Amino acid sequence: MAKLYFRYGAMNSGKSTSLLQTAHNYKERGMNVIVMKPSKDKKADECIESRLGVNQKVDYLIDEEDSILDIVRALEQVSCILVDEAQFLNPKQVDELLKITIYHDIPVICYGLRTDFKTNGFPGSTRLLEIAHSIEEMKTICRCGSKATFNARFIDNKLVTEGDQVAIDGFGVSYESMCPKCYYRLCDNEKILRKIKGE
Amino acid sequence: MAKLYFRYGAMNSGKSTSLLQTAHNYKERGMNVIVMKPSKDKKADECIESRLGVNQKVDYLIDEEDSILDIVRALEQVSCILVDEAQFLNPKQVDELLKITIYHDIPVICYGLRTDFKTNGFPGSTRLLEIAHSIEEMKTICRCGSKATFNARFIDNKLVTEGDQVAIDGFGVSYESMCPKCYYRLCDNEKILRKIKGE
Amino acid sequence: MAKLYFRYGAMNSGKSTSLLQTAHNYKERGMNVIVMKPSKDKKADECIESRLGVNQKVDYLIDEEDSILDIVRALEQVSCILVDEAQFLNPKQVDELLKITIYHDIPVICYGLRTDFKTNGFPGSTRLLEIAHSIEEMKTICRCGSKATFNARFIDNKLVTEGDQVAIDGFGVSYESMCPKCYYRLCDNEKILRKIKGE
Amino acid sequence: MAKLYFRYGAMNSGKSTSLLQTAHNYKERGMNVIVMKPSKDKKADECIESRLGVNQKVDYLIDEEDSILDIVRALEQVSCILVDEAQFLNPKQVDELLKITIYHDIPVICYGLRTDFKTNGFPGSTRLLEIAHSIEEMKTICRCGSKATFNARFIDNKLVTEGDQVAIDGFGVSYESMCPKCYYRLCDNEKILRKIKGE
Repeated sequence: MAKLYFRYGAMNSGKSTSLLQTAHNYKERGMNVIVMKPSKDKKADECIESRLGVNQKVDYLIDEEDSILDIVRALEQVSCILVDEAQFLNPKQVDELLKITIYHDIPVICYGLRTDFKTNGFPGSTRLLEIAHSIEEMKTICRCGSKATFNARFIDNKLVTEGDQVAIDGFGVSYESMCPKCYYRLCDNEKILRKIKGE
Repeated sequence: MAKLYFRYGAMNSGKSTSLLQTAHNYKERGMNVIVMKPSKDKKADECIESRLGVNQKVDYLIDEEDSILDIVRALEQVSCILVDEAQFLNPKQVDELLKITIYHDIPVICYGLRTDFKTNGFPGSTRLLEIAHSIEEMKTICRCGSKATFNARFIDNKLVTEGDQVAIDGFGVSYESMCPKCYYRLCDNEKILRKIKGE
Repeated sequence: MAKLYFRYGAMNSGKSTSLLQTAHNYKERGMNVIVMKPSKDKKADECIESRLGVNQKVDYLIDEEDSILDIVRALEQVSCILVDEAQFLNPKQVDELLKITIYHDIPVICYGLRTDFKTNGFPGSTRLLEIAHSIEEMKTICRCGSKATFNARFIDNKLVTEGDQVAIDGFGVSYESMCPKCYYRLCDNEKILRKIKGE
Repeated sequence: MAKLYFRYGAMNSGKSTSLLQTAHNYKERGMNVIVMKPSKDKKADECIESRLGVNQKVDYLIDEEDSILDIVRALEQVSCILVDEAQFLNPKQVDELLKITIYHDIPVICYGLRTDFKTNGFPGSTRLLEIAHSIEEMKTICRCGSKATFNARFIDNKLVTEGDQVAIDGFGVSYESMCPKCYYRLCDNEKILRKIKGE
């Protein structure tokens, strides 16, 4: 019985590397693996890029209005579907992925962030956390050495806790994976600094 | 470093038993463990009841407007906080539980359902899935022998897919833990039956 | 496809409770579950006893020379096999359990200790760790609040690091689950004390 | 508190890729990570090679008679130790790795195979399974699409079940990761074929 997997992790936990490795494992076996990502992800155009230097073109860019069930119905002999940046899917598309495992018996493995820089869930990942057959964590470390689970956003190296959910890094925007303890302490410090400055 | 754990599972996966066992393990060590549940859970009044026949009075019933941080500040020497039926917490209370692990260094272990009978998340569990340090699954089986992850609601032994999120079993209402495959097949069958009957 | 599961944990981590809960889950569904344990375990005669106060008679006591495959061939309509104190199985019996999942398509769930009071593996659990489809940890806490993974033996409240692998508690013998850090520190202290006393 | 992790997986499950990604994550943070492997592994000389095309020189080749505790005492400011092909360590060296986490507070992450082509444990991995704080599985697929946990050896494309524990692939020797079901079925078939041929 095919399953829907959600492999979540903070930024820079190696999600894309793991996806590319899994794709490689299937291809080595001569199996047909389909790699997708939501078009909302502007980071690497039509590619999946690992920070280790490996990259691959995606087979399909999923638009907001796409039905993934329709896409899969048009394909033949699919052994596995891999989805990167799955936090950008909409909940309806996640429901479709579950149905693909049930009605088409194709395993689906999604990789994505759990939460944004304000610790709020993304539509795709929250739905995946709710209905995936299996939830698996990809680990990375905080600056303190603990496991990082949050993603802090910085503008010109200053922590920000307000703004749009999506802002791709570059042009002064950067991100850092943090453990909840370091994240909240930094938030507390920023608040005190703003108070001192009378902001 | 204390952590926030979410142990989720479908109905009848043994969540209350596991909570009572964990409470027992702490108490055996002479440690002070606080057992809570949201007052929204009407099932066993002020008790936590395991289907194995074991039960225990809770130390604190959490109301919708309660601040769990305030409760914990009033307590002394707490080694661990256990929360049953955590799906009924509100998201703010879950954020407080995370802060208890950070600022008070007390581990918090929550037990709860992931989703309701319509496969929608509960406010408390969705927030726990988003921010808990660690997410652990409690397993149970579907009628087909596969792992059950969904909770189907029946009224007079007929599957229902509409109604309020909460309806405690009894008076014709019952629940069954199911795998997604059996759940969706049963939904499909019900739809066809309703169509045939012209409902 | 049926699987062989090994749920390991230190002493007093709730293994028997979890086994009894799992048995209950199957029986509630009207499924036939077989509960076994090696006869080498003298603790509760022919029973499985949970520290929560629940207990149940086993269906089969496995002797050292028994073939579990032969036992299973003699049974009909088995939905699941549960084995408590699986550390006392011999490696050949563990291999048979794997074959039961393959040739009879019956899931097998084993509960047991990983290591003895000297941190050496038990024959049954080492083989289970090597070949089980799935290895799952049952957690309990050390006196320091960390996760306990080792089992320290005490005679008249004094740590011992030599003796037979099996010595059931009672008559001065007791056990305590410990994290590796507390366990090794206690060993170090005992060595120093013995040196001071000239032992 | 630092921990000893064992990430085990069948051949070609992406263990080296995961190790290189973890090393990258630490280095990106400016942390000092030490990469080791047993010199018994002849596969890539002094390198760790991922099938994705990434590779890195190891910092230390561990010989059979080496004390890893002595090596670590000579180093300064180590944030993490990564060990590839950890199945080739001897049990004493694994005990030392646990002690490094306890006495030096340095996390140690080991990657390795669970079992050889005869399903027997390797000395290093069996000891890691017994005492690691945390055991994590790296997954790959069998030819049938199920999870592979065994490693079958082939000589000139014929399954073999006898021979030395270590034989690096090449010169007619090859390996295939398999699920227990496919592995045992292939063993059964080979036995029948040998019988027919009168071998």
